[in-house]
Amino acid sequence: MRVVGLDPGLRRTGWGVIEAEGNRLRHVAHGVIEADPAQSLDRRLRDLHEALLEMIAAQAPQEAAVEETLVNRNPDSTLKLGMARGIALMTPALAGLPVSQYLPLVVKKSIVGTGQASKEQVGVMVRQLLPGSGVRSADAADALAVAICHVHHRATRRRWGGLAAATALEEPA
Amino acid sequence: MRVVGLDPGLRRTGWGVIEAEGNRLRHVAHGVIEADPAQSLDRRLRDLHEALLEMIAAQAPQEAAVEETLVNRNPDSTLKLGMARGIALMTPALAGLPVSQYLPLVVKKSIVGTGQASKEQVGVMVRQLLPGSGVRSADAADALAVAICHVHHRATRRRWGGLAAATALEEPA
Repeated sequence: MRVVGLDPGLRRTGWGVIEAEGNRLRHVAHGVIEADPAQSLDRRLRDLHEALLEMIAAQAPQEAAVEETLVNRNPDSTLKLGMARGIALMTPALAGLPVSQYLPLVVKKSIVGTGQASKEQVGVMVRQLLPGSGVRSADAADALAVAICHVHHRATRRRWGGLAAATALEEPA
Repeated sequence: MRVVGLDPGLRRTGWGVIEAEGNRLRHVAHGVIEADPAQSLDRRLRDLHEALLEMIAAQAPQEAAVEETLVNRNPDSTLKLGMARGIALMTPALAGLPVSQYLPLVVKKSIVGTGQASKEQVGVMVRQLLPGSGVRSADAADALAVAICHVHHRATRRRWGGLAAATALEEPA
């Protein structure tokens, strides 16, 4: 199974694609989509949408997992975060992929073992779990972490023969 | 010139298309895109995107104007508002339309003459300015109001021979 993880933001959106076969994980590709801050909001969102569509067409993932970026204290930033996340949720759905969302806490717990893990610890574990990925950008590492988290939860779901275990950990989409 | 106005929301998105020729306004069409609350967030956003694309293809507007829906006090609602607004800004841009944004205050001032106007007053004025529109839904009336507001500001911009007058009233996109 091929999964794309997304860590959306209006400035930078990290993405990472992995393949899972049973317990084995394989890094496929990762990258960061950067917005042109000189552009208007509508064009930045359009560029993000088009870049995501292109990446999905090139990488052909079967499922998508999106990090539920934390809500900012500044309502204007929250609104903009919502815009980027809206595009990150909508675009894979448009491409026909099932989309799951995971809270940062759930991602960290799944990768490092504790929800209190730092960004650095997540990066270290992602590089360990995906040898040869050579991922350096924190945004792409976060995206790969979301993809790994999705694979873990999928496996748990299968083991328990239902959705109950996973839905308890995921925020309703 | 044909303008589409949009009043985006995650539950209901109002749209309204008008035509302007000099000082004359003509109602073309309006409607409300309703989301299926039983669907997941990613599918609701995809449905909104697809419905907007379809409407734009059918109505063939040349420019789009989006209401800058007010930020909610609840961060989660603000985030969701941002998602719907992100789709409402991105989709016309994807269709090649220039997109402008107007604050509710600016829309009310442009339609009723005061930023303190009620939703009902806006509806009454929209029906007066667009006889024969028969618009009843408040969301569609708001969308038509944004379209009218855009036409007014466009005319001012032309009169003053520059963007200065309009950019002072619009929030930067």
